[in-house]
This record gives sequence, structure tokens and C-alpha cells, in this order.
Amino acid sequence: MTEGRFFCNHLSVVGLGLMGASIAMALRPYVRTITGIDPLESTRDFATQNKIVDDATASLQAGVAEADVVILATPVRIMLDIINKRIGSYLRSNTLLMDIGSTKHDICDAMGQLPIGVNAIGGHPMTGKERNGIEVAEAGIFQGRPFVLCPTRRTTPATISRALELVNLIEAVPYEMDSIRHDKVVAGISHLPYMLSACLVGTIASATEKDQAFWDLAAGGFRDTSRLAASDIAVMTDILGTNTRAVATMLAMFRAQLASLEAMLLSGEEQDLVDRLTPIRSARIRWEENYEQKRNK
Amino acid sequence: MTEGRFFCNHLSVVGLGLMGASIAMALRPYVRTITGIDPLESTRDFATQNKIVDDATASLQAGVAEADVVILATPVRIMLDIINKRIGSYLRSNTLLMDIGSTKHDICDAMGQLPIGVNAIGGHPMTGKERNGIEVAEAGIFQGRPFVLCPTRRTTPATISRALELVNLIEAVPYEMDSIRHDKVVAGISHLPYMLSACLVGTIASATEKDQAFWDLAAGGFRDTSRLAASDIAVMTDILGTNTRAVATMLAMFRAQLASLEAMLLSGEEQDLVDRLTPIRSARIRWEENYEQKRNK
Repeated sequence: MTEGRFFCNHLSVVGLGLMGASIAMALRPYVRTITGIDPLESTRDFATQNKIVDDATASLQAGVAEADVVILATPVRIMLDIINKRIGSYLRSNTLLMDIGSTKHDICDAMGQLPIGVNAIGGHPMTGKERNGIEVAEAGIFQGRPFVLCPTRRTTPATISRALELVNLIEAVPYEMDSIRHDKVVAGISHLPYMLSACLVGTIASATEKDQAFWDLAAGGFRDTSRLAASDIAVMTDILGTNTRAVATMLAMFRAQLASLEAMLLSGEEQDLVDRLTPIRSARIRWEENYEQKRNK
Repeated sequence: MTEGRFFCNHLSVVGLGLMGASIAMALRPYVRTITGIDPLESTRDFATQNKIVDDATASLQAGVAEADVVILATPVRIMLDIINKRIGSYLRSNTLLMDIGSTKHDICDAMGQLPIGVNAIGGHPMTGKERNGIEVAEAGIFQGRPFVLCPTRRTTPATISRALELVNLIEAVPYEMDSIRHDKVVAGISHLPYMLSACLVGTIASATEKDQAFWDLAAGGFRDTSRLAASDIAVMTDILGTNTRAVATMLAMFRAQLASLEAMLLSGEEQDLVDRLTPIRSARIRWEENYEQKRNK
């Protein structure tokens, strides 16, 4: 452990994918023992052989029994199952339980039903990689990135300060907000872009059935705009399925934008088009400058 | 000039932006004299000082008078003006005239009205950079990228073989197709992504008016999907304005994709959602592998 900073005795991470393994690696210097829980033997072997965790098990009950901090890093629907049906009776009193799922309302709601004595808080590190899996896990992926914390009915003031300590140790930037607000925001900045990206690929794939040139000539602009369509399907359907209403709201807002832009285009009102696109362009450029600044801090 | 390969005596490039200057640089080894035509003095100075061209002028007439090859590299609407009203009487007989605009039908149509003796062909190098301007011009941006050639009523067999020679010299990959087909394809792979990207930024900008967290938490997924919204407005409105019908067609196809995906989401038919998203994901992954392979050749 790094001199002078200590987070906990025993950390258990449930789900050793990219995010779970990365958070284990990032907290490694501040923790005595880390247990990994994962159903896949090959993942557990990788985690122990690469010293990402000290020991690994397929058993949730055995894996969290001694923990004073438990992080849930499975797909959202599995987390809900774990919180609703299983983990409450496995944890010691006063354990800090944090999930790092991509939607927060359903999870925080479920956490609110846990036995009193479990200190539960929702978390969402706004980071990731194009590829998933423990092989690409990296301690540094949280650095300088937002980490949303969503209080639940089982969040005490001490829970919040422990969670903030965790966020600071992995060098992320904490944002505290309620789970409904979080879900609205990610519907806009993450789930809407995924839907657009997938439908763009669907459109071009269908056009390609008539003319292969659509595939052959597609270049950088298509590449960027369609990148999210390659996201993991199980992860994305879990996310969309637990945030349906907020996603549908953002889709309605998007359709309004698209309809008015298309009307300007079809009517030939070119100055209107310029007047609409100019502030959009400036906003995008300002956002990028800001984003780069925050990343380079 | 590089030993053994020679393209022409006198090349004139009209419009010294990223694309015009890059093509001048790429053809530099195979040409005796290059004249640049640009209305901006600072651009002309940059071009001559950096030896991108041998001489530069603001006068179209003077600039193309001695040329045996002329490349038009201005925004599309200015090209149309040049072709319709001016350049026909300025060119020597047998000059090769090629444009490199992003939409082809209106331009190729206009080229078809030029005096007999002008050898005119439409061109579209499928490449670019995030930034525009002569400062970021680069000879290598055509390498391995598609270069579409669209015949016009003023395209002779010799015109095509000269154009193919040009494409080969700059190490691009030629695709010959009629201008209507070209415009349909770029509507899908380039103009549709721009519209989606701009409307995504418009949606998030409008959501941000109520909650700054939309801007603050947006990360990599938003970044990729919204990148095209920062494109040059004058260039984009010219493109959209000369390809309106094909863009509207692709938007209609896109809306159908979005509507059916949203219906699956709202109805909770999750297996339908998985069945729809899985081939989209595979298609995107295959496309990327192909694209990378071609780039690395």
C-alpha cells in the first residue's frame, strides 16, 4: 500500500470486466485484500495471475462475506437481481456497497430496500473503452473523468464521505446528483447517441443491399458517427431497458430538432439553415475545448 | 519532377483550401508549373512561400489561361458559378477540367454545357481532415482513399484515362460511377451522419439550458457521434443545398429505422431489440475491419 493512504481492509469486486477490473487496479495501492467474484473461470484465472485481485471465486456469498467494501460491476440487470434477491443477507453490518452501473434509478431504488446497516450508494464512472473485458482493464481510466454518485435510502453521511474518498483515490471527479437526474442526463449524452449510431448503421446496411458502394466509400465521418453501434448488445439492452422513458424523451427532442432542420432544407430556406447550424457548430467546438482542458488537467 | 513520370506542363488549382492545396502538393512531383487561384491574399502568400504553387493570382481568367489541367476546389456553389458563367471562354482547347466537390450531379450537369473541346469530368476524393485550410494541407491525404470519377457530356475516353492517371499518381483508389449514384451514396455515408450529428448537438444544447450536467458529463460516446457538427457551415449548406432530395431520402430511411427500434424499446420486446441490434453491431465491426485493411494497404 502507498504510504499514508489507506482505504479499506477487504475490497470485493463483483464482475471482473473492464470496469470492475479497472477499479480493482486503481484501488490496489490503498487496500489490504481484494477478492474478485466472477462466473467465468478464465476471467478469474486472468485476474489472479495478473495480480488484479488476491483471490477469486464464483460464489457471491463467499466472495463478499469478509468485505468491508463491495463494488458491483456486472451488467445492470444482474446487479438488480443481486441487490433484490441475494446480497442483503450476505453482507456484514456497515459494509459500503457501491454499484458502478450505467443507469442509476432502478438500482438506487433497489438499494433503498436493503437491510438497515448496509451503506449503499449508486456510482457511475463516466469512462470506458471501445473494447470490453478484463484484458484491457487499466487503473488510469478514471483519472480526470466524472464519477457520478447517487444517494439511496441506505446512504448515510458517512457513506457519502467514504464514496468521495474512493472517487478521490482513483483520481476521478465526483458529481453528486439524484438518480433520476443522472438517468435523464445519460439518456441524452450516451443512450441517444447509441440509438442514432445503431440506426445510422441500420440505414446504410439496408442501402448497401441495393448498392455496395455505400459500404465501400464510407469513410471517417461515417466511422465516427457510427462507432457506438459496435457497443456490447447485452450491456446496451440492459441500459435501454432500465432507462426507457428517459431515452424516449430524448428521442422525441431529437426528432423535433431533425424535423425543423429538414423543413429548412426542403423549403430551401438556406439562411435559416445557416442560422440554425452556426450556434450548433460553436457549441460543439466550445464543448470539445472544455472536454480537452478537463482531460489534460 | 520525379524521374520517368510526368502528368502535365501547367496545372491550375482554383481554391487553395485543404483539398486544393493538398492536391497541388500531391501532384507537385509530376508537373512543371502550378498556378494557384484564390481570392485571399494571405492564402496566396502562404501557397507561394511554402512552394505549394509556383505562382498565385486572384484572377480566374489569368490563372487558367495557360493551363492544360485545371482543378476546381472551391465550395460547390462557387464551382457552379465558375462553370456556368465564366470558365468556358477562359480555357484553351483540350484542357482537362476536373472538380473535386462533394456533390456531383449539379456540377456534372453544368460541365455538360461547357463548349466542346473542354474535357470535363467530376471528381470526389473521399478524404479530409477535421480542420480546414491551406495550413493543414498534406500531399498524403489521398493515399489509399477512394476517389470517385463521374463522367459528364464533356468526358471523352481520353478524359477518363487522364483522370485515372491523376488518381493513380496521388495514390488514391478510383471508383467510376454516374453522378446521381454518387450523390445518393454520399447522402447516406456523409450528409446523413452530419445531420444526425448536428441534431444531436442541438438536442443536448437545448437540454443543457435546463441542466448544465448534460454538457459537463458528456464524454467519448457523445464526442464521436457529434464530431461532424463542427464541420464548416458554408461547405455543408452548399452540399446539403445541392443534394437535398437524396438527403431527404436517406432521412426518411433513417426515421423508419429509428421508429421501429423505438417501438421495440417502448413495448419492452427485448428479444426483438437484441435481434435487431446484433446484425447492426456485426455489420459495423466488419465494416471497420475492412476499412482498416484498406487504409493499411
